[in-house]
Amino acid sequence: MNWESIAAIAKQWIMEAGQTIRTSFEMKLDIQTKSNANDLVTNMDREVEQFFIKKVRETFPDHKILGEEGFGDNLENLDGVVWLLDPIDGTMNFVHQQRDFAISVGIFEDGVGKVGMIYDVVRDELYHAVKGNGAYLNEKKLSELPQVDIQKAIIGINPTWLMENRRIDHNLLIPLARDARGLRSYGSAALEMAFVAAGRIDAYVALRLAPWDFGGGSILVEEAGGSVTNLKGEKLDFLTKDTLLVAKPGLHEKILKKYLNDGNW
Amino acid sequence: MNWESIAAIAKQWIMEAGQTIRTSFEMKLDIQTKSNANDLVTNMDREVEQFFIKKVRETFPDHKILGEEGFGDNLENLDGVVWLLDPIDGTMNFVHQQRDFAISVGIFEDGVGKVGMIYDVVRDELYHAVKGNGAYLNEKKLSELPQVDIQKAIIGINPTWLMENRRIDHNLLIPLARDARGLRSYGSAALEMAFVAAGRIDAYVALRLAPWDFGGGSILVEEAGGSVTNLKGEKLDFLTKDTLLVAKPGLHEKILKKYLNDGNW
Repeated sequence: MNWESIAAIAKQWIMEAGQTIRTSFEMKLDIQTKSNANDLVTNMDREVEQFFIKKVRETFPDHKILGEEGFGDNLENLDGVVWLLDPIDGTMNFVHQQRDFAISVGIFEDGVGKVGMIYDVVRDELYHAVKGNGAYLNEKKLSELPQVDIQKAIIGINPTWLMENRRIDHNLLIPLARDARGLRSYGSAALEMAFVAAGRIDAYVALRLAPWDFGGGSILVEEAGGSVTNLKGEKLDFLTKDTLLVAKPGLHEKILKKYLNDGNW
Repeated sequence: MNWESIAAIAKQWIMEAGQTIRTSFEMKLDIQTKSNANDLVTNMDREVEQFFIKKVRETFPDHKILGEEGFGDNLENLDGVVWLLDPIDGTMNFVHQQRDFAISVGIFEDGVGKVGMIYDVVRDELYHAVKGNGAYLNEKKLSELPQVDIQKAIIGINPTWLMENRRIDHNLLIPLARDARGLRSYGSAALEMAFVAAGRIDAYVALRLAPWDFGGGSILVEEAGGSVTNLKGEKLDFLTKDTLLVAKPGLHEKILKKYLNDGNW
């Protein structure tokens, strides 16, 4: 496989989809809810996913595609080449803000990440990486991520996980949140992973994500020199929903050892 | 006073200061801490404040200026014309991210807000308002803010206030956070107020801000049709540190009545 040329094609499609999304700002959205009243989906999420599926099937008929909106393949394994696609990551931001959302694409071969792309549509910032060749923001190569102490780290985390909730014991995350220099929450997992890759935040913690949320970002962060696991410190398998810890090198290990060790994640 | 022409002059200075800040990205910052290890200040905060003070004193010798870095006047009242200035609101973002920080300027006459400006330096977005003339983002007039239910509201809040802390009983804010559609935290009070004015978030809650943090934003939000008080529902006095609730009309009243009534803020 020539991953650089596959990446170039993926980039073209992402740019075309981004233009379609920007144009949609002038039109009325059809907004519906999915699993709960705050899990939004719009006609644009569906339209962009179908656009990618059509393109992938025409151009790479042997590739499979797993998309958030369910128009792709039902996969039982990651054999062969698989595209993990979130057509609009951060749909709530898309609906409320018309910014701070992203198209996320990860291309995997036999479960190994090869191409990762996150497109911040409104800022026109494409974060992209081909395995082994480093991570880029538009034309600029991102610096290798440096070490940082927790006391100087900014952590991305949804405040929901710091309040009592049905899923985890929130008290386990509070010492981490307290020791960090600052906390941020932007409402898009893909963008928050891109921000780790670009060094804007130092770590990102999430409790409930799907493969299309972290597929592209995981390749990007690793190519920038960061680390990606679930909160147990295990590799992600990219087929199942999981927790997520992405962070700068060293910081990732410290967070796991000092703060997350006791959690039943 | 011709507030429109004072606003035009303030805008020129803000744009010039913004250019100075953008140029500084190429240079090494001198970063120090103030009240605690995470309260950062840089040579640029100081330089920009001194730039404004010089300009105001040259151009409007009878105006007073109260700035975050302390180079301005020591005020015991708001008689006459007073400029409230935060040269870089969101210094941590400035240092770590080189974006998501703002210059905030509020101009008051006898304690009444007349001109409010918040400049998102990196996005080149100037939010501005002259009392009575509506709120603008660059050249575009912002729509009058509509009503919204808490269930469809995105609230800006620093997650710190949702964890046990020395200042407030965090349990009082959790029902509000839980009932909202989503929570965001961007690390700049001025920008979060501008985002309320622009309808990107529906409310912003803060527990410890100074007059230069909310001076410009309060005028902006009110001119967009939103409401601004402290968490007790009282008017801000713009001389003392205070809590802050800014929100869309209706939502502001509901948050006060339903969620904040019992707090000893």
